[in-house]
Amino acid sequence: MAKFGLQENGETERVAFSDADIEARKWVMETLTKQGLDVSIDFAGNIIGLRKGSNSELKPISFGSHIDRVPNGGNYDGCVGIMAALEVIETLNENKLTTRHPLEVIVFSNEEGGVMGSRAMSGHLGKAALDVVNSTGYSMGEGIMRLGGDTTRIAEVQRKKGAMAAFLELHIEQGAILEKENLDIGIVEGIVGLKWWDVEFTGFANHAGTTPMNSRQDALLAAAKFIVAVNEITNSFEGAQVGTVGRIKAQPGAPNVIPGKVVASLEIRDLSAEVIEKVYQAIKARGEIIAKESNVKISFRPLDTTAAPALTDSTVQKEIEIASTSLGLSHKYMPSGAGHDAQDMAWIAPTGMIFVPSKGGISHSPKEFTAAVDMANGANVLLQTILSLDKKM
Amino acid sequence: MAKFGLQENGETERVAFSDADIEARKWVMETLTKQGLDVSIDFAGNIIGLRKGSNSELKPISFGSHIDRVPNGGNYDGCVGIMAALEVIETLNENKLTTRHPLEVIVFSNEEGGVMGSRAMSGHLGKAALDVVNSTGYSMGEGIMRLGGDTTRIAEVQRKKGAMAAFLELHIEQGAILEKENLDIGIVEGIVGLKWWDVEFTGFANHAGTTPMNSRQDALLAAAKFIVAVNEITNSFEGAQVGTVGRIKAQPGAPNVIPGKVVASLEIRDLSAEVIEKVYQAIKARGEIIAKESNVKISFRPLDTTAAPALTDSTVQKEIEIASTSLGLSHKYMPSGAGHDAQDMAWIAPTGMIFVPSKGGISHSPKEFTAAVDMANGANVLLQTILSLDKKM
Repeated sequence: MAKFGLQENGETERVAFSDADIEARKWVMETLTKQGLDVSIDFAGNIIGLRKGSNSELKPISFGSHIDRVPNGGNYDGCVGIMAALEVIETLNENKLTTRHPLEVIVFSNEEGGVMGSRAMSGHLGKAALDVVNSTGYSMGEGIMRLGGDTTRIAEVQRKKGAMAAFLELHIEQGAILEKENLDIGIVEGIVGLKWWDVEFTGFANHAGTTPMNSRQDALLAAAKFIVAVNEITNSFEGAQVGTVGRIKAQPGAPNVIPGKVVASLEIRDLSAEVIEKVYQAIKARGEIIAKESNVKISFRPLDTTAAPALTDSTVQKEIEIASTSLGLSHKYMPSGAGHDAQDMAWIAPTGMIFVPSKGGISHSPKEFTAAVDMANGANVLLQTILSLDKKM
Repeated sequence: MAKFGLQENGETERVAFSDADIEARKWVMETLTKQGLDVSIDFAGNIIGLRKGSNSELKPISFGSHIDRVPNGGNYDGCVGIMAALEVIETLNENKLTTRHPLEVIVFSNEEGGVMGSRAMSGHLGKAALDVVNSTGYSMGEGIMRLGGDTTRIAEVQRKKGAMAAFLELHIEQGAILEKENLDIGIVEGIVGLKWWDVEFTGFANHAGTTPMNSRQDALLAAAKFIVAVNEITNSFEGAQVGTVGRIKAQPGAPNVIPGKVVASLEIRDLSAEVIEKVYQAIKARGEIIAKESNVKISFRPLDTTAAPALTDSTVQKEIEIASTSLGLSHKYMPSGAGHDAQDMAWIAPTGMIFVPSKGGISHSPKEFTAAVDMANGANVLLQTILSLDKKM
């Protein structure tokens, strides 16, 4: 897969809608067709490969991920799930196994640029999203047309709840938890929700030479205390919630001027919307104390970027656990800190996610790495889970 | 003076080399000429007005400041010193007083853009400075020609130590110390030196959703702890030193990515180079502890922008104090946190500086304000100091 978009420097670039993306999709479709599947592209540009089951009245068991990449990304994010899906089909073919349910391989379009294909399928892709341009220069609307979709009929892509018997996604963990704890498989309890705020500190810009230390209204000093507090407060609660300040701008931004205004981002993620709110309220309360003590003003402005937590299905979780155990693979239940196509599938289908270890937790980077044995483990768990769900559902 | 460069919004713009600067200079030269002084422009664009003394063998007592302004600046910075100098000459003329020493009014060129005229006079204007372009679009070299100077002969402007009997500058405080303590006059002990560093924190940029709080190498969190420490440490020493972080850049700078790299500025100012070094070493030591505890790397890179502390002359200080007392004006000894033309004059002449209050400590802003009574007080102290130095030196 890494051959599609391979650069002279040995790294691969394959942003959604790029020529490399289109070439890689073509290869996947050819492979699925060779494997005997009925292959089509839906109006949102998702690739759908259908393998008939023995009972035509049953809804499909669907599984997949994506093959588009972030700029300067790695070879494993998304691709492991698609390569494993092809391997599952290959193994079933080699063993001449026909499941009761139809099986559906889905290669979601433009995951990295806003989980486009899966949002369209769950009915959550807003119209405004179609105008968003990615690094290829194409808007999502133009991109969909390039992929063989049709923006005028995109609403038809939406599936009703119950249209799939189950949805499964195998993905690299993108964290370092499995590696650190020396575990083979992560059973994803859900994809965390997230909220973003812009936090603004307003002090008074003044001459750094003439303004004594005790007369300052230093917006950056207040912001610094706030950043330390975000870390302390996020750590003070039990659980796996994370709180991050990733962006900061201090104005006027000269070494010899006390900053009069600072805007910093705040992001909080957790599996529970209540926990996100609880952590936010604690951070907000501390921020207001810091502002008062620092003689500056503070305000919190919620940003549009939010995502509700998406819980996976407990029955599917249990089947993943049984499959892992039967294969002799160590495992743990864990949240996914990153968003995935499975997040949107959880709206419309009993959904499960299987994680395999990422070396050093590095992701969205050419240094991204997952060992072949870990990918094979994940693919085997995916296969066994599909087979047991096929029997029980 | 505020008429030269007056805009439609009621504010004045008069950056060095602008048409407004040239018009204001013309008015000052005409006024000095009307007052009977011998007026010239030196090769660095400084305006020199010479009033003969009764003893032609004595070196001049010089005084002045500047009339150029920062963009979006105020009406008082620099101008108060020049308007007071004109008033001193006017008062001497009205009273038909001739001093023993020649008196020299100096309007230094381009103070705000790098104390250009005074540096040329002290021999500290580097060649590279001539290429620096200010907001008018002219380089210093082009600007000097516009002002009537001559860049090819600029070295001739340099004065030897002892060429002036004394130098005096009246200036607004630009801080809020005199106002807060309800004092009339500041007797400047010296102009603080300053040093700048870029402080770089190197952690590891990672996914803010998938990286647990205890696995992060958050460069911004370390930088935030450092900024708080800079404030604490600067305050922990006795004295008037100031320490400031005014500029910060976090990379990659997205709300959902843990910052992997942060560069923050550090500025320390004090009257004593030893104190600057002592505070820096304490900050550096604490920074290294913070970095270690935060699992990031820290490095300090000294920047070119440095200025040695410039002490004023104790005899001149004493005469300013005597003049203030005799006029019934309250006063205190204090450092100047900002740079001034007097800083360079201190290399070549016994130098004194007189401060008058700035409302709210606001400077380099249209909100800059000094009351008429405070300007009159300053001008009177300047006159009395000149007269007493004239008798005693």
